[in-house]
Amino acid sequence: MNIMEVDTVRLDEKKKAVVIIDQTRLPGQIEFLELKNAEEIWRAIYLLQVRGAPAIGVCAALGLYVLAEQIKEEDYEAFWARLKKVSDYLNSSRPTAVNLSWALERMERCLEIYHFNGGEDDRAGWLFCLHEEALKIYAEDIAVCRRLGEYGMSLIRDGDGILTHCNAGKLAAVRYGTATAPIYVGMEAGNHYRVFCDETRPLLQGARLTAFELQAAGVDTTLICDNMSASVMKRGWVDAVFVGCDRVAANGDTANKIGTSVLAAVARQYKIPVYVVAPTSTIDMRTASGDDIVIEERKPEEVTEMWYSERMAPEGIKVYNPAFDVTDHSLIAGIVTEYGIARAPYAESFRDIFARKEACGGDLLVQN
Amino acid sequence: MNIMEVDTVRLDEKKKAVVIIDQTRLPGQIEFLELKNAEEIWRAIYLLQVRGAPAIGVCAALGLYVLAEQIKEEDYEAFWARLKKVSDYLNSSRPTAVNLSWALERMERCLEIYHFNGGEDDRAGWLFCLHEEALKIYAEDIAVCRRLGEYGMSLIRDGDGILTHCNAGKLAAVRYGTATAPIYVGMEAGNHYRVFCDETRPLLQGARLTAFELQAAGVDTTLICDNMSASVMKRGWVDAVFVGCDRVAANGDTANKIGTSVLAAVARQYKIPVYVVAPTSTIDMRTASGDDIVIEERKPEEVTEMWYSERMAPEGIKVYNPAFDVTDHSLIAGIVTEYGIARAPYAESFRDIFARKEACGGDLLVQN
Repeated sequence: MNIMEVDTVRLDEKKKAVVIIDQTRLPGQIEFLELKNAEEIWRAIYLLQVRGAPAIGVCAALGLYVLAEQIKEEDYEAFWARLKKVSDYLNSSRPTAVNLSWALERMERCLEIYHFNGGEDDRAGWLFCLHEEALKIYAEDIAVCRRLGEYGMSLIRDGDGILTHCNAGKLAAVRYGTATAPIYVGMEAGNHYRVFCDETRPLLQGARLTAFELQAAGVDTTLICDNMSASVMKRGWVDAVFVGCDRVAANGDTANKIGTSVLAAVARQYKIPVYVVAPTSTIDMRTASGDDIVIEERKPEEVTEMWYSERMAPEGIKVYNPAFDVTDHSLIAGIVTEYGIARAPYAESFRDIFARKEACGGDLLVQN
Repeated sequence: MNIMEVDTVRLDEKKKAVVIIDQTRLPGQIEFLELKNAEEIWRAIYLLQVRGAPAIGVCAALGLYVLAEQIKEEDYEAFWARLKKVSDYLNSSRPTAVNLSWALERMERCLEIYHFNGGEDDRAGWLFCLHEEALKIYAEDIAVCRRLGEYGMSLIRDGDGILTHCNAGKLAAVRYGTATAPIYVGMEAGNHYRVFCDETRPLLQGARLTAFELQAAGVDTTLICDNMSASVMKRGWVDAVFVGCDRVAANGDTANKIGTSVLAAVARQYKIPVYVVAPTSTIDMRTASGDDIVIEERKPEEVTEMWYSERMAPEGIKVYNPAFDVTDHSLIAGIVTEYGIARAPYAESFRDIFARKEACGGDLLVQN
């Protein structure tokens, strides 16, 4: 089984289940989970069996549809009350993941509008509406990532060396990923790239997930430790850096997995462009700059104990373990969105991007 | 038992043994090994129970004296032949460590000169000569590191934040270490520093050894992953970076543990000075620049398997695992030697340093 041939998250219409690749078993084992009840979906998100903001959003939307099918009420108020309860429960699985609440709210809102507008206002109609919206969220993720890939691909040439950090790959979304999309879309066009993956301490998403999916996709992949980026750049092996992001501020400052700003500083030293691949949903115009982004700090054991066969640091040692860092916009050569590539000055460039998004009603599927 | 109260390598005169801290058991257990025969000394070096170029040199010198005591020959030629054989055997434990062969050759040469000059030319005399030379090599290491600390300390102020990489600490030498010497000597003068240790992938010397010894010394120590350097610098927590080195070229380019050049590029971005702490023995005027330094590549398993409770990367993944990198002299604010601090242009500055060394016959103990 090649994981590149199946979506990270998908709906099995026959089994009435959300099917995911269990990411906690990678890279050792490829296992699929069929999520059929609320507890299973909640646990899959909570335990990081499905992870990556886009993938979580899609899983929640498809999941809410599957759970709606199990609600037997024929009265709208009763149906809605049950659905809302289930939705709130799913939303509690990872309270900080924006895409999770965004996807669930979108599902709820779609049902409310459908009901408000009248139409086939019965249980079959409600389910039809939820089914359509869930599949739209799923299809949009694929379309957005594909478009990211098309724009990103224009920044590189056949044979180029690409360095990436953490996993902003297929496993974090449905099909193409974000930072990896230019590589996968480029390959569909017949190009080949040599890709270097930072292992990405402390949680090793680069080693466990990115190296795994690139290898499965047949990409010439080389794993390195995070502190080897200068060595591969110095040897001329890297033409561009592609990274994902968690939030982009209005001035282009970008919060992403810890180590991204280290990588960007090294790339500057070796004059290699750094591209952030960011769906417009991650551009937060209400955040003025990176200084306004709060950085989550995580527990020391991720650094000192996790994964290891024995404790690798002295007992009681202080550990500073920020999960993200902010890369200054001055170190970023371009921010690739599904509506084009933003360049400095970013505030201005983002205005153009959002104008283009507005012009097609924010519906990339329509634009396609 | 606090490891800071005992030397990393020392001679036990009563037991006629070299006593070392077993570094393969750190940080979990503090254990001392008494090395009394050739196999034990060879294995201790081979298995990295004693590591760090200075510490290995001292261990070999003290070890050769201990083994000489066991040679019962009264005839010089026979005594010499036996000693040479033992010395060659010890030298085979880590063929690439320069300090190892340097220390053993120095011991051999001292005996040859003593014999050539006449004097008490009997077994007791030969042993006296070897005993003196071994203890001199041991004492010189302490004196050199102390002097590195005194010069290095002049670059920082009480309360400063220091970031260091890998282990160029007490555990790599006898007492003060190289990169850590400014911290320890500064503490003796009543200063306190906040020190950040890079864990130093893939072999984790920072987490296992540096964090351990600094904690034992009562230093305010914080462990970070290598990719968090930008985060601590951005927060204003770091005033200077101190690193050791494996070889310094004539133009100041410095080979050191992988990741050093990444750290230096990040420090440049945040305008924080990087100081290389380097005994003059590591400055190689015959190497013109960093381009002439061959970088050892090590096996992939160090990145993908070692330390872990399970395999952390996909089977068959390509890994690039250079053990060292070269930091360009343009990123180095100063190179601290036991004869003063070299500054750019380094070729010129090194000439002054070596002139000063020449002036006291290269004997720092005399200069003291």
